[in-house]
Amino acid sequence: MKWSKALIPTLKEVPAEADIISHKLMLKAGLIRKVASGLYNFLPLGFKVYYKIENIIREEMDKAGALEILMPILSPAELWYETGRWGLYGKELMRLKDRANRDFVLGPTHEEVVTDLARTEIKSYRDMPKNFYQIRNKFRDEIRPRFGVMRSREFVMKDAYSFDRNEFCSEESYKNMFEAYNKIFNRCGLNFRAVEADSGNIGGSFSHEFMVIAASGEDTLISCSACGYAADKEKAESISASSGNEKEDLKTLEKIHTPGQHTVEQVVAFLKTTPAQLVKTLLYMADGKPVAALVKGDDELHEIKLQRFLGADELVMMTAEQVETYSKAPVGFAGPLGLSGMKIFADNAVAKLRNFVIGANEKDMHYINANFDRDFKINKFIDLRVPGEGDLCVKCGAALSSLKGIVVGHTYKLGTKYSKTMKAEFLDEDGKRKLMVMGCYGIGLARVIAAAIEQGNDENGIIWPMAIAPYHVIITALNYKDEKIKALSDSIYEELKTQGVEVILDDRDMSAGFKFKDAELIGIPVRITIGNKAVNEGLFEIKLRKTGEEFAVKREELSNKVTEIILKEQVK
Amino acid sequence: MKWSKALIPTLKEVPAEADIISHKLMLKAGLIRKVASGLYNFLPLGFKVYYKIENIIREEMDKAGALEILMPILSPAELWYETGRWGLYGKELMRLKDRANRDFVLGPTHEEVVTDLARTEIKSYRDMPKNFYQIRNKFRDEIRPRFGVMRSREFVMKDAYSFDRNEFCSEESYKNMFEAYNKIFNRCGLNFRAVEADSGNIGGSFSHEFMVIAASGEDTLISCSACGYAADKEKAESISASSGNEKEDLKTLEKIHTPGQHTVEQVVAFLKTTPAQLVKTLLYMADGKPVAALVKGDDELHEIKLQRFLGADELVMMTAEQVETYSKAPVGFAGPLGLSGMKIFADNAVAKLRNFVIGANEKDMHYINANFDRDFKINKFIDLRVPGEGDLCVKCGAALSSLKGIVVGHTYKLGTKYSKTMKAEFLDEDGKRKLMVMGCYGIGLARVIAAAIEQGNDENGIIWPMAIAPYHVIITALNYKDEKIKALSDSIYEELKTQGVEVILDDRDMSAGFKFKDAELIGIPVRITIGNKAVNEGLFEIKLRKTGEEFAVKREELSNKVTEIILKEQVK
Repeated sequence: MKWSKALIPTLKEVPAEADIISHKLMLKAGLIRKVASGLYNFLPLGFKVYYKIENIIREEMDKAGALEILMPILSPAELWYETGRWGLYGKELMRLKDRANRDFVLGPTHEEVVTDLARTEIKSYRDMPKNFYQIRNKFRDEIRPRFGVMRSREFVMKDAYSFDRNEFCSEESYKNMFEAYNKIFNRCGLNFRAVEADSGNIGGSFSHEFMVIAASGEDTLISCSACGYAADKEKAESISASSGNEKEDLKTLEKIHTPGQHTVEQVVAFLKTTPAQLVKTLLYMADGKPVAALVKGDDELHEIKLQRFLGADELVMMTAEQVETYSKAPVGFAGPLGLSGMKIFADNAVAKLRNFVIGANEKDMHYINANFDRDFKINKFIDLRVPGEGDLCVKCGAALSSLKGIVVGHTYKLGTKYSKTMKAEFLDEDGKRKLMVMGCYGIGLARVIAAAIEQGNDENGIIWPMAIAPYHVIITALNYKDEKIKALSDSIYEELKTQGVEVILDDRDMSAGFKFKDAELIGIPVRITIGNKAVNEGLFEIKLRKTGEEFAVKREELSNKVTEIILKEQVK
Repeated sequence: MKWSKALIPTLKEVPAEADIISHKLMLKAGLIRKVASGLYNFLPLGFKVYYKIENIIREEMDKAGALEILMPILSPAELWYETGRWGLYGKELMRLKDRANRDFVLGPTHEEVVTDLARTEIKSYRDMPKNFYQIRNKFRDEIRPRFGVMRSREFVMKDAYSFDRNEFCSEESYKNMFEAYNKIFNRCGLNFRAVEADSGNIGGSFSHEFMVIAASGEDTLISCSACGYAADKEKAESISASSGNEKEDLKTLEKIHTPGQHTVEQVVAFLKTTPAQLVKTLLYMADGKPVAALVKGDDELHEIKLQRFLGADELVMMTAEQVETYSKAPVGFAGPLGLSGMKIFADNAVAKLRNFVIGANEKDMHYINANFDRDFKINKFIDLRVPGEGDLCVKCGAALSSLKGIVVGHTYKLGTKYSKTMKAEFLDEDGKRKLMVMGCYGIGLARVIAAAIEQGNDENGIIWPMAIAPYHVIITALNYKDEKIKALSDSIYEELKTQGVEVILDDRDMSAGFKFKDAELIGIPVRITIGNKAVNEGLFEIKLRKTGEEFAVKREELSNKVTEIILKEQVK
């Protein structure tokens, strides 16, 4: 491609609407343009990157035996009634009526349609395993679209759905996809981690997120460098690094007047102790029923962990009125001793405490030297904490660290969640009809682009991994009007193209400085400069975008050298 | 691919919903399944064909210098207000509101979005020509979706839009696309014709349709084998083959009582003449104004030609009441003599008539020996007839023939229709701001598949052109449980794959007859049969789907022979 024939509208100024680096650079480098809130055009350069990622995904999915299909975006409401997601999904689900007033959904994912396909076409255990995938537009009416294509309302997703005859085979299919995902993100040249994750809206038994590591990432992952354990913050389990005081003798329980002291900080200052020696009692309504959760004063309750443990559809903190009703005291004085009408769950770290402070369910009163079992009963100790830096790994006990990342893929072990509600059955070898066991697997293609930029950039612009760069090579012709420079540039351009090198020739009538800036901004891995030095001395300057390394090669070495650089950087 | 790993749910029975051969075969061969009215899943085999067509299109578009982009399907209503299509499009346009109650359209085409892109990013004449395309889902809420994927409500379209600095350059861009389309449909292996067509809803100055010739086609094209002229029925001009009687002397006009005779047949029988000697007077309201159109009694008025000539947004036949008001007579007796308050246009064939019959604008009365100029005035003679078999070519005078076909592509010279309403301007070389001149170019990918099947099928199933067949070769292993047959089949399967041959191995535990039937049904061009004959005699039977030709080759010749057949059939 010659630059003059392309459309690469680079910008000098950072557009005001952009808040993160990938969004800024995608606009500046002319990869995308906004159409409306959360809706973007991918311009030719952006499309090239998108299409490379699409092809890497397709190749690896095909290699993994998945079957590509195409399902309509318009998905009839009837299927969504069957799974109940019509009611559950809320406003994020875009809905419309056709001319006959029938309800349709713009698919945000395609479990309903693909399960309908499977229950019709898969009849016997012999027909499985099957894994159907498509690469198409998805729609989610985000309440606050942001970060450019990272959280947009329409986006291309590769979504795959596996169908198996039993749990064991389904786990094999899951592992197969897990490996395919590792290959895909490796081939894209990304530094990423596969982490255990929460299943969220999609549901199912377990899931992994594929996170591209980037300091600017909006997600946090907790990982153990010793044993490799990694999970997103919402899912991560950990052991509190504080050892507790479980060896201490039990002291005598005492009720103390703590006038006006109701935050952890106030109470521990007043009682001259530490947050680690206080136990907070947090009161919730889970699907309309009261429940109490205890965590140490220096820990934070992880609501999702509590909700998941309870299997509740809805978990909300009690209102001040509800707190008064159940604890018989104003907010700030609830405690497990004397609390009735609800179950009490405590975080594992509480189990190591003795002689701690708790609320007394009475205005301005706390107990000191409280102890579970002796003074009150805990229904169960479970993991309820938000894991923190310095916590210990539940698998190996080593120290955990936290990293920022961007989720680009998500795999879910769905079990029979959808096949049950939609009656997706098959005839098994033993002659019995059974439910298919499902998995689903998504990759957000635009997110991969944005994450690659978050991971690869400097003050001058984007630094693409070779595999997904829009072009491998940019030829910067310093003065293309000069006949000799033009002839030389054109001949090298043609030669490289013949060798399968993807090359863009900057043939614009612009200054060298301007062209160099644009080349850096759009992040092409290899730059070849052609000016008088090339014409007169036969020396071609090569500059590598990633390292900044510069060197000159002779004409006859040029294309071999370039091919070598490209091959070295491509992950196969 | 091994058949057992694929999903190819062939059907024995023709599904009741299908009315045309391509729809029947696409269902029977397991290419598609219906999701809802006008909405289809493309199953793996159908997707393979789709994807081959997509790639042929992409390659030829890229070669033609067009730039691939990706525009959102959700398109903000504001852009549609600008062009007025929000109001004009009617119920076919699918509309929805987002959570903030803003109006959006599911793009049926993308003129609005792409013109908005062009007016923002194309600034100077130096930035043109530009041609942007995408290959994505489109939406049209057809009142009666039918013929399977041929007329569905969601379909993938390649839509391209060219922007040029003036008419001359725009025509160059048009020609460039016209050539690319010829290459695309040639490479797809289709027998097609590019025909002049009406611009319809999209508007603009001229257009071509690319029609795949098939007896079952819903469109008619008129073509001249002598000079190559071809046009669709709505657009075709022609010369009536009847020579008329223009040399006759003018006879005396007479008013005749024709009681109760008001159809052409009744009147000519009563007057003992022929339909060719009668002139029908048809009364219309064009945008609310009355107009009369005259055609010979044996010709049919082509309403679209009249409407286009008048430049009317709406053309409707007068109601009986309106006929009485304007002609002062009941329906069936209108005539040009004495007709006032409206213009009168006549078909060119009327110009050759003398002494003909017309209505007298009086109940039960006709004139005989009427003549224009002498008795009444014609405002203009124009082409108003539906062309018929046997008509003569307007370009060379040779006889025209009509063919049935299926429209798979459409190119439009848009002029400044959209750039004017949307103010898509650029700075020209002379320092003046001018409107960009546009063209647009569409291909319906699913229509290409259906048309290929309409053109290529027999009583046993589909006959694919090599270039878009889902697989080049099917290996029918007669008894795959037999160790020797399995080993031989697998080794040939691997060998062919290594050579880049796309091959499916039918490894199912089914009878030979069943497998042969399925192979014919899904239409794979080359079948290799592997049974005892192959194992014992080293002879491999090859059968070609298209010709039915069968022959045997030796092991060592097999892959060369297969490659040779494939190459011969591929259009490059």
